[in-house]
Amino acid sequence: MQIGFIGTGVMGTGIVLNLLKAGQSVVVYNRTKAHAQKVLDAGATWADTPQVVAQQAPLVMTMVGYPSDVEAVYTGENGIFAGIQAGSIVVDMTTSTPALAVKLTALAHDHDVQALDAPVSGGDVGAQNATLTVMVGGDRAAYDRVLPVFQQIGQRVNYFGTAGKGQHTKMANQIMIAGTMTGLTEMLVYAKAADLDLPQVLTTLSSGGADNWSMDNYVPRILKGDYTPGFFAKHFLKDLRIALQEADRMHLDLPATKQAKLLYEAMVDDFGLGNDGTQGLIKTYEQD
Amino acid sequence: MQIGFIGTGVMGTGIVLNLLKAGQSVVVYNRTKAHAQKVLDAGATWADTPQVVAQQAPLVMTMVGYPSDVEAVYTGENGIFAGIQAGSIVVDMTTSTPALAVKLTALAHDHDVQALDAPVSGGDVGAQNATLTVMVGGDRAAYDRVLPVFQQIGQRVNYFGTAGKGQHTKMANQIMIAGTMTGLTEMLVYAKAADLDLPQVLTTLSSGGADNWSMDNYVPRILKGDYTPGFFAKHFLKDLRIALQEADRMHLDLPATKQAKLLYEAMVDDFGLGNDGTQGLIKTYEQD
Repeated sequence: MQIGFIGTGVMGTGIVLNLLKAGQSVVVYNRTKAHAQKVLDAGATWADTPQVVAQQAPLVMTMVGYPSDVEAVYTGENGIFAGIQAGSIVVDMTTSTPALAVKLTALAHDHDVQALDAPVSGGDVGAQNATLTVMVGGDRAAYDRVLPVFQQIGQRVNYFGTAGKGQHTKMANQIMIAGTMTGLTEMLVYAKAADLDLPQVLTTLSSGGADNWSMDNYVPRILKGDYTPGFFAKHFLKDLRIALQEADRMHLDLPATKQAKLLYEAMVDDFGLGNDGTQGLIKTYEQD
Repeated sequence: MQIGFIGTGVMGTGIVLNLLKAGQSVVVYNRTKAHAQKVLDAGATWADTPQVVAQQAPLVMTMVGYPSDVEAVYTGENGIFAGIQAGSIVVDMTTSTPALAVKLTALAHDHDVQALDAPVSGGDVGAQNATLTVMVGGDRAAYDRVLPVFQQIGQRVNYFGTAGKGQHTKMANQIMIAGTMTGLTEMLVYAKAADLDLPQVLTTLSSGGADNWSMDNYVPRILKGDYTPGFFAKHFLKDLRIALQEADRMHLDLPATKQAKLLYEAMVDDFGLGNDGTQGLIKTYEQD
């Protein structure tokens, strides 16, 4: 089966390379063609628009930046829905809004097309090593058909229900991470000010009830002054904004997540550090 | 060596039982004598005041409730300093303020006594199983002498420096946990509202970057409606208040930890849930 893939950024590139490695035939489109060179060199073919991708592939996957990019890629003039064949499947892997997932699914059904929302976690390393976690919502029959493809790019694939449920699960994931990131940042700010031996604090805390993945992975990087992105702060801020919009829509008040969003807003919008990794949050405390 | 132990609550009881099991001779005092019965039955002896404990033991350990209790036990009319012999060692294991640890150390030195602050993490289970993490500050020579005793009650024992550094490390630990607890609570509130399969969300999140000890341990309890305390919310609130007072003193602004304190304040003071475990925070969201 020909697979169409739109969006060959860091994540998309890793995913497409794994699909090619698994023997799939992949046709790609990316807004900036130069950024597709790596997958083209590895055997993918090029299409000039999302529409052309959709004309050539019965399974179209997308991994772009923001919900507005998702909408443009699907519903724009030369978008996927302009080229899609009845009986096809579309899969949006962008972390985007549950509401947009519902809307795109309805539009897909108008074209006799099935749709999935399938955001991932695991970052660039997970994309490269095919160890992503894939959180899927949407048409169950489509999930069953696409599962073997997901398994070529991810380690843990789970179906969470109707359209938008994949995105909701990803939001739950990001809300949890907002807690670990703000916690580890303020822990480190405090421990530095108290003049503690920071590696020894890390060892002690990770042996008990304070242990968490973010601390174990990001504190050593911060202590080395390494703020390169495992995950871009600007993308994390996007995710927190979506999570809080959805929370509002469900009449939920999430004060700790709101506070985390304010902190990442300061980092990205006021300090201009959106291209740092999420661990760069600590810089905003040090510039007070 | 005779060991004096003041404070036979849940934590103190577990610790004293392990000292007795290790062959130590222990004399105890507790404000409510009935709560010492378990350790008396196991072989500890009773003293009527902290002063008498100090008269009988060259090593006096304390594990009481609040900093005000610590101060009373050491400096009160029938307190430790009224009975202590020169050359003795005092060890406060209560989670208390770094400033009080510094003050008690100075007072101890006036009596030719050495002092340690040695708060622990690991909860009642850690106290029972001798798997506590012990974070020690204070007189280095005293630490070297007491280390074999700490090793009878804890699994990981670390020296962090001068008086108060043990308490500062414990505060860093609690600041980190404030992040994981608020994060897991809001994650769960969101996931419930989005009607996700909660055990499946937990499995998915713990396989990736959102993983943390608090989520793995408390979410299953919350899903069973189990709010019994592994760690009392009222004690966690006390710790967050100390952490934020210390942060203020060091001219640090920790907005996420402040927000966590506000949430636990609502739980303990407004909802009267201080005797629940820290995982009971989610009840305050559900009662909105």
